[in-house]
Amino acid sequence: MNFKVYIVGDKIKKFYVEAIKEYEKRLSRYCKTKLIQVKDEDKLLKVLSDKFYKILMSAKGQRISSEELANKINLFGISGKSDIAIIIGTENAPYDEKISISPMEMDLGLATTIVFEQIYRSYRIINNQPYHK
Amino acid sequence: MNFKVYIVGDKIKKFYVEAIKEYEKRLSRYCKTKLIQVKDEDKLLKVLSDKFYKILMSAKGQRISSEELANKINLFGISGKSDIAIIIGTENAPYDEKISISPMEMDLGLATTIVFEQIYRSYRIINNQPYHK
Repeated sequence: MNFKVYIVGDKIKKFYVEAIKEYEKRLSRYCKTKLIQVKDEDKLLKVLSDKFYKILMSAKGQRISSEELANKINLFGISGKSDIAIIIGTENAPYDEKISISPMEMDLGLATTIVFEQIYRSYRIINNQPYHK
Repeated sequence: MNFKVYIVGDKIKKFYVEAIKEYEKRLSRYCKTKLIQVKDEDKLLKVLSDKFYKILMSAKGQRISSEELANKINLFGISGKSDIAIIIGTENAPYDEKISISPMEMDLGLATTIVFEQIYRSYRIINNQPYHK
């Protein structure tokens, strides 16, 4: 699987960058991940690949548990959807489905950290491995 | 207002400690906050103050938006509930109400960061101040 995580907005804080790096390192044994930051929605449209299956993170999206996310990622793999784009920080982007972490608004760096942590958690669930703190 | 945030579990990661410190610094102009970490539920019961209004963070709790949380904190202040305990990392603790961030399971350090970020966000909402990234 190949995840591109697009984040739209200003520079994120150092501790969130560190957190994301840690989860990217852990994820490297399961999948490819790439974080792509753009300033605004116009820039996003220029770099967003059309062949990717697009998940928009939105407070108005479908609320799912970690197990349901793991199941979704597993099914993507099985059904050949191996290029996944996750979009964070805008409501105005093309998407195939919308997922919600929380009805709470969140800092962009924090929301991105949650997404990486949840992808990591998903792979631990899919592989029946204990979650490593 | 006086918030005591009790977290139950193992040591949290450095980048989450840094994130929490940043929000504590920002919150210092609005309220008092204290992070108290304990190893397990027995230890929690020993240090949890009875006079505090207790909010248990639980995936099964009430899901609220940032505006609703701000409203809740504002009402606590108005109604004289000025000592608030927030409990993270266990489902087995006494509580007055349960609140959910997300149906997703989360790392303890990450969940604690979210709680501090949301308290900070609440005070910015209550005071009609823009959210400072």
